[in-house]
Amino acid sequence: MKPETFSLLENYMTACMGDSAHDGEHVRRVLYLALEIGSTEPSADRDVLIAACLLHDIGRAEQFRDPGLCHARVGAEKAYHFLLDQGFPERFAAHVRDCVRTHRFRSDDPPASIEAKILFDADKLDVTGAIGMARTFFYAAQVGQPLYSRLPDGAVSDGSAEEPAGCHSVLREYKVKLERIYDRFLTAKGREIALRRQAAAVRIYNDILAEAREPYETGSRILREHFSAGGSV
Amino acid sequence: MKPETFSLLENYMTACMGDSAHDGEHVRRVLYLALEIGSTEPSADRDVLIAACLLHDIGRAEQFRDPGLCHARVGAEKAYHFLLDQGFPERFAAHVRDCVRTHRFRSDDPPASIEAKILFDADKLDVTGAIGMARTFFYAAQVGQPLYSRLPDGAVSDGSAEEPAGCHSVLREYKVKLERIYDRFLTAKGREIALRRQAAAVRIYNDILAEAREPYETGSRILREHFSAGGSV
Repeated sequence: MKPETFSLLENYMTACMGDSAHDGEHVRRVLYLALEIGSTEPSADRDVLIAACLLHDIGRAEQFRDPGLCHARVGAEKAYHFLLDQGFPERFAAHVRDCVRTHRFRSDDPPASIEAKILFDADKLDVTGAIGMARTFFYAAQVGQPLYSRLPDGAVSDGSAEEPAGCHSVLREYKVKLERIYDRFLTAKGREIALRRQAAAVRIYNDILAEAREPYETGSRILREHFSAGGSV
Repeated sequence: MKPETFSLLENYMTACMGDSAHDGEHVRRVLYLALEIGSTEPSADRDVLIAACLLHDIGRAEQFRDPGLCHARVGAEKAYHFLLDQGFPERFAAHVRDCVRTHRFRSDDPPASIEAKILFDADKLDVTGAIGMARTFFYAAQVGQPLYSRLPDGAVSDGSAEEPAGCHSVLREYKVKLERIYDRFLTAKGREIALRRQAAAVRIYNDILAEAREPYETGSRILREHFSAGGSV
């Protein structure tokens, strides 16, 4: 790919994503991770891969405005028509479209080509490890989710118990989603990077749970004893 | 303290903090940490400590509306007048007021009493460890700060370099503030808990930096090589 083609695609991506500077950094990490995975997959078409990575989230704004839409499907069609309009070969545009469409896993439409599998893995890698936890905290803050929830007896939940749908805590999100992602990679290199990062995410989950639980257990016991002792105020 | 007095103070705190459910959990953690520290300080007045913890952030909304205000000073006056209105002794109300006012450190008005020092330490403990990092991510997301910044050469900054004031990245916040907090505790127990948590924060910082840098370094090198090879698109 020529640098000017890269700039064309990157500028279109930036225009589609508006002011979301963080999403731009996510796209950059996905691109670089995909190139790293791609370096171990000699049959992968690097031009298709780069284009698919740069354009994979360009349907986000549409999904944000209408949560009934799937950003992968919207983005796939936008990418296809943009590439055709810019004079790319139809075969190239269709290949990129298919990668973008399947980067969000659906059992009835899984990633088919090696480029689609690499994009899928690179995108999922950004949910692993410490970066994956950090992104989960950012997302939770943006949509008003708490760090943890408390059980009926007041104790800090480890995320195993059910929580109201649509308002999961970060620890619940870890238990139902992040914890289970590590065996869902499609390429050997993607799986290798994911497993290398797994320990960092496990540590963060365990550390937060321990740091939240310890004062709750000690402090609430002291408070109960204090109440039992009566008091002048 | 009687349980009904605790409920009265807690309800006033909740009313002052409005919909900020997360801040309510912060207050709860500070209270419990303060009780844990207080259990090693026999001279501490537990009733003053509990009231000061529950009320320490009730000036947040005022500071949010007018950043020129100091939430510790506003909250101190609110707490004092609330306690007087509710019939607490003036000496008690004044002691709580002083604790709330000095929980945000100013060199010209440091925490004086043991209860003020315990509140100060308990509040600072919630900025340490994995919980402290998680709270920093939440805050960054709310005010639009990025996870990291990039240096002029495109590399991921470790936070050592200057960044635009008012838009620090999380890694910068760690280097200028969080990293330096561990030797600023005023009680032996507070310092002990802080040092026990320190390793978790250091690990999160190091893991995020490594996970961000590795793909940037590998991926951008592959991209440069790909550009050098020329291309059909």
